[in-house]
Amino acid sequence: MRPDGRQPDDLRPVSFERDYTDAALGSTLVRFGRTTVLCTASVDEDVPRWMRGRGTGWVTAEYSMLPGASEERIRREVKDGKPSGRTQEIQRLIGRSLRAVCDMGALGERAVTVDCDVLQADGGTRTASICGAWVSLHDACTRLVQRGAVATHPLTTTCAAISVGIVDGTPVLDLPYVEDSTAEVDMNVVMAGDRLVEVQGTAEGVPFDRAGLDALLDLAEKGIGELSALQRATVAEAPAPR
Amino acid sequence: MRPDGRQPDDLRPVSFERDYTDAALGSTLVRFGRTTVLCTASVDEDVPRWMRGRGTGWVTAEYSMLPGASEERIRREVKDGKPSGRTQEIQRLIGRSLRAVCDMGALGERAVTVDCDVLQADGGTRTASICGAWVSLHDACTRLVQRGAVATHPLTTTCAAISVGIVDGTPVLDLPYVEDSTAEVDMNVVMAGDRLVEVQGTAEGVPFDRAGLDALLDLAEKGIGELSALQRATVAEAPAPR
Amino acid sequence: MRPDGRQPDDLRPVSFERDYTDAALGSTLVRFGRTTVLCTASVDEDVPRWMRGRGTGWVTAEYSMLPGASEERIRREVKDGKPSGRTQEIQRLIGRSLRAVCDMGALGERAVTVDCDVLQADGGTRTASICGAWVSLHDACTRLVQRGAVATHPLTTTCAAISVGIVDGTPVLDLPYVEDSTAEVDMNVVMAGDRLVEVQGTAEGVPFDRAGLDALLDLAEKGIGELSALQRATVAEAPAPR
Amino acid sequence: MRPDGRQPDDLRPVSFERDYTDAALGSTLVRFGRTTVLCTASVDEDVPRWMRGRGTGWVTAEYSMLPGASEERIRREVKDGKPSGRTQEIQRLIGRSLRAVCDMGALGERAVTVDCDVLQADGGTRTASICGAWVSLHDACTRLVQRGAVATHPLTTTCAAISVGIVDGTPVLDLPYVEDSTAEVDMNVVMAGDRLVEVQGTAEGVPFDRAGLDALLDLAEKGIGELSALQRATVAEAPAPR
Amino acid sequence: MRPDGRQPDDLRPVSFERDYTDAALGSTLVRFGRTTVLCTASVDEDVPRWMRGRGTGWVTAEYSMLPGASEERIRREVKDGKPSGRTQEIQRLIGRSLRAVCDMGALGERAVTVDCDVLQADGGTRTASICGAWVSLHDACTRLVQRGAVATHPLTTTCAAISVGIVDGTPVLDLPYVEDSTAEVDMNVVMAGDRLVEVQGTAEGVPFDRAGLDALLDLAEKGIGELSALQRATVAEAPAPR
Amino acid sequence: MRPDGRQPDDLRPVSFERDYTDAALGSTLVRFGRTTVLCTASVDEDVPRWMRGRGTGWVTAEYSMLPGASEERIRREVKDGKPSGRTQEIQRLIGRSLRAVCDMGALGERAVTVDCDVLQADGGTRTASICGAWVSLHDACTRLVQRGAVATHPLTTTCAAISVGIVDGTPVLDLPYVEDSTAEVDMNVVMAGDRLVEVQGTAEGVPFDRAGLDALLDLAEKGIGELSALQRATVAEAPAPR
Repeated sequence: MRPDGRQPDDLRPVSFERDYTDAALGSTLVRFGRTTVLCTASVDEDVPRWMRGRGTGWVTAEYSMLPGASEERIRREVKDGKPSGRTQEIQRLIGRSLRAVCDMGALGERAVTVDCDVLQADGGTRTASICGAWVSLHDACTRLVQRGAVATHPLTTTCAAISVGIVDGTPVLDLPYVEDSTAEVDMNVVMAGDRLVEVQGTAEGVPFDRAGLDALLDLAEKGIGELSALQRATVAEAPAPR
Repeated sequence: MRPDGRQPDDLRPVSFERDYTDAALGSTLVRFGRTTVLCTASVDEDVPRWMRGRGTGWVTAEYSMLPGASEERIRREVKDGKPSGRTQEIQRLIGRSLRAVCDMGALGERAVTVDCDVLQADGGTRTASICGAWVSLHDACTRLVQRGAVATHPLTTTCAAISVGIVDGTPVLDLPYVEDSTAEVDMNVVMAGDRLVEVQGTAEGVPFDRAGLDALLDLAEKGIGELSALQRATVAEAPAPR
Repeated sequence: MRPDGRQPDDLRPVSFERDYTDAALGSTLVRFGRTTVLCTASVDEDVPRWMRGRGTGWVTAEYSMLPGASEERIRREVKDGKPSGRTQEIQRLIGRSLRAVCDMGALGERAVTVDCDVLQADGGTRTASICGAWVSLHDACTRLVQRGAVATHPLTTTCAAISVGIVDGTPVLDLPYVEDSTAEVDMNVVMAGDRLVEVQGTAEGVPFDRAGLDALLDLAEKGIGELSALQRATVAEAPAPR
Repeated sequence: MRPDGRQPDDLRPVSFERDYTDAALGSTLVRFGRTTVLCTASVDEDVPRWMRGRGTGWVTAEYSMLPGASEERIRREVKDGKPSGRTQEIQRLIGRSLRAVCDMGALGERAVTVDCDVLQADGGTRTASICGAWVSLHDACTRLVQRGAVATHPLTTTCAAISVGIVDGTPVLDLPYVEDSTAEVDMNVVMAGDRLVEVQGTAEGVPFDRAGLDALLDLAEKGIGELSALQRATVAEAPAPR
Repeated sequence: MRPDGRQPDDLRPVSFERDYTDAALGSTLVRFGRTTVLCTASVDEDVPRWMRGRGTGWVTAEYSMLPGASEERIRREVKDGKPSGRTQEIQRLIGRSLRAVCDMGALGERAVTVDCDVLQADGGTRTASICGAWVSLHDACTRLVQRGAVATHPLTTTCAAISVGIVDGTPVLDLPYVEDSTAEVDMNVVMAGDRLVEVQGTAEGVPFDRAGLDALLDLAEKGIGELSALQRATVAEAPAPR
Repeated sequence: MRPDGRQPDDLRPVSFERDYTDAALGSTLVRFGRTTVLCTASVDEDVPRWMRGRGTGWVTAEYSMLPGASEERIRREVKDGKPSGRTQEIQRLIGRSLRAVCDMGALGERAVTVDCDVLQADGGTRTASICGAWVSLHDACTRLVQRGAVATHPLTTTCAAISVGIVDGTPVLDLPYVEDSTAEVDMNVVMAGDRLVEVQGTAEGVPFDRAGLDALLDLAEKGIGELSALQRATVAEAPAPR
């Protein structure tokens, strides 16, 4: 039995609140249990200089934790003058994941930045960010289609992610902080539809074997299947045009 | 008639959502119309080195805008390696304002940081931040009293703030962005109960006279009276202990 | 009686030494008692990229304290890699104040930077800076007129500033450091001719009421009247052309 | 057939040149084909403040590319004021990998920093760095044992890494730059002896399935088997004591 | 004949204005022709941590140009986040030069920082800085002796510096900007009494021979002889105690 | 007798290993005893914006120490966010020295950056860097001539450098660290063929006289004569074209 009563292959309660704010073209508040992330997709009708004239677009992501997101206050990175290595790893991961499901030609010469700001952190912030970012990006793109700026919706399939790990010898799905901090192996998996985009597994102290890796991948595929079904349901109805 | 149908001396709809998150000891989502700020109060059971041994505490504030808070995406300040001059002005203002109503001896040797992160910006973010920060700080202190860590609640009175300005020759209260960007005079007023803590008035192009200044101060006093009544009502019932 | 023997509504001895150096087009050494600031106005026959083609100019200010300006040496801000929040507040204030009295169309497409470097600090450095900066800016503009580069002198009126405060319950004018460090209320007032440009009042510990605010504004108006008369006398004779 | 004539499961020629320099306690020049990395292990007879008194040590790694390491000169990161996200990812990876095979209690209260400076880059710099870093760390620890500073050699097994990828649909081992830049899938695998420490796979454009992942893992296990045999042979004879 | 009518071996008019400000313990305004530098010596009754307990002191220098010091405005280095290479070279040179004539045991455990801020720049700012810095340091030390804090004046002899160069094939002394910018060879010489402390000669385009070097050293010795006589005359009378 | 058995006017064993790596157009590993520097010359077929259209090229240098280059690990400068003053002094010196022997018109509109990365440091790293940089720059230019990109080889003569110093009262040539750290006078001399380019002498504690300076210059001329003969022999045979 896990600390919050879940079975090893259970997700936490997951929700996507669309249009949580209305300034950005896509804005989703995603919750995985207590983990809460505001994902906004902002569209710039221009691309970086080196991409101009190719007719294709670009998608990037940025990630940050609000200082009050955890019980012990988190120092703002602006005080250190630069994002930490962890932050950079995460925002590069989110950006790569979203680009794997976005047809840049269909998007056209515009740049979308998806910002993932963690309002509350209880494990799995990077995977929740990817899931919420996809919904915001989908809504922003839908609105571009509604406006006639884009002819075909550029997202080719869902993009979802989940954390898995080995805790006390047992492979488990969707780890909250209390499990994450004691896991022997920690892995994040990102999928585009039913194929893999990223697999990042790390042994925290105890190296693992191929059987352990396979068990974790099975769990991740199950969880991502549920998440992508929820994503599809969320965006089934188009958002109000703007 | 103002763009949103208000009278010159009307506030926008204001709400305080307490315990919006549960990681920080105080956490308030404040809304002034579309302007939305998450204010969290984090308590550190220590003070900066230079204050140790005096038996008194300290309160500071930090302020930031989320990139998706406005229609045109706002660049993260961490990319410039430092907070902008505007950000520093605002967080110094919030900190001074809160300290004006906090009995540092009653607080004891602990430091409270109030973080004001703007989820959506539509004018008046610094004044909404002060109002929401006060509620979060009040809740955090109440919980310190509930725990027995603090004997007497350290807040001596309410602290509230509002923007006023002269738009097309008319003094108006609580300006949204559309008014703020065209105001001839822009002033922020902070009060501790019914006395002044800060008065910051700036002529944007057209200098003003004492009569104009007096009209703005009258409006500000009226608005702050309403805000502090709402603050008192919000904290009338104690938050659940932690 | 004040520490230096002045009455509550007395200014310290004030002097403007024009053309203190000859490299910049305007260069004034201003003294308010022991407070000494070198204000130079440098003209760049170009404007920032975003302003080009509009036919209008721009005025900005920068401010710094020399390390030996106070008894306890002041660390250079370059060592921290960025100007402090206080420095940024002050240079934004000086720039806004000067722009309030400058006709940017008359100035034409050129940028003037006024640098205020404090050689010795004894309270009131920001207000002395504004007063000296105006004289330097006036001289620089006069020389532009003399050269035929500018048709009409762009300064529309004087711009002067003074600090006022409440010390031991008494409103006083032009505070040296010894008074400033113990004042209950501290306020800086900037005027363009006889109208207000900036009012920045802060309670240091003890909030104040409208009557206190009015007394401070009366003192400030009196002091600024004397300062602007001295400014007019200083620039009455044109500087030697260059 | 691959561009350099290798079979899909062939490593490039690999060599470890021990004691390439003599200032650091361990110093290895590792070559994977044209990729050349100087790995030095420096021992500090102290640990970070937060680790003192526990009797355990610490191992970290840093990574950098020399500007002349590639045909197009690489800008020094010091010019940007901070390591890039890529650099930080790599040095965190090297550090985690080495720590996975180091008994920190056996090492005792001392910190080892392994620096991996790439003299020439032709793909696989991070995996070559891990392999060379292990040899340098092993030599440094052996010398600590020779000196009597450490009782038991702290390294518990070998640590080796290799890159694998899918190029034109074919899984291949140990990619040089020309293959790496066109691979559909790129994966780095780190093993401690015959168990996994890190698996980092990324789809560059084309998502992959479980069968592809398995083929890559098989290749990686084969390559790492050869590399760790070479590592063991390299350190079989103890280095000259110092 | 030189542009300003001097003979090749003439210094510009040189003056030292002592106690130009009164906040720092030593404060000298030095002028070499139009070059004007404010040199302040600030005493800290403490030394850096690594020097404590040795009973000896330390002297360092910092150097900066005010933005209005030249006709074309000089950008503040704080905007780049760090001192330029040129600034660092100069402040290291000034510090080394002063330390060469200071008995650190006689100074005792205190640190003196000499700040050289260039109010106007017309060539030779680093050599003028050294000369002025010595006077300020001498006055500060004299006051320490007057206070009884120091038993023996720590300065063992004068420290003076001058620039020499080859302009149009002629060796000349004390170059203003107009000569400096076209010199074939540029050399700065620092002497402690009648012995050499620093010789820094650089060919700007045309390499030089030993005969040219000797001619420059002869000129420098003559100029420094005059400067050190003026320094001795300046400090012959003790400053007013503080 | 010196610590390593040399006579006062002996160089350490010096070697130049050409084409140590093959990515940069010139790449030389230079050794002065244990001091080892990798010097690469990278050619950019463009010049900085401000030089375009003049038909002339530019040569700059950068310098860095690898962390493992000395027994006590050297902290990477990127961690401080900027090159140290010492690093900047050295890279400015190397660049000036190389430019003194390079005909920029013959080089044409291209920029060469010579990177000097110290693999092991035992005194004299800046002078070894200059000597090795010249060989790399010569090889890079020869290859530009071989390619037909440049008509005439731009290097007009050799450029070599050596350190000299006074140790225990004796002038000595080419100081290793153990001598350098105790020298009373330390001087670096750079020559273009048989003429002087740079003379940088510093008294470390004990000022020196003209006779001492002359003895050091004599030693330097002897050593540089030997070094430039070795440089000429090294590049006598052209490198393999690329």
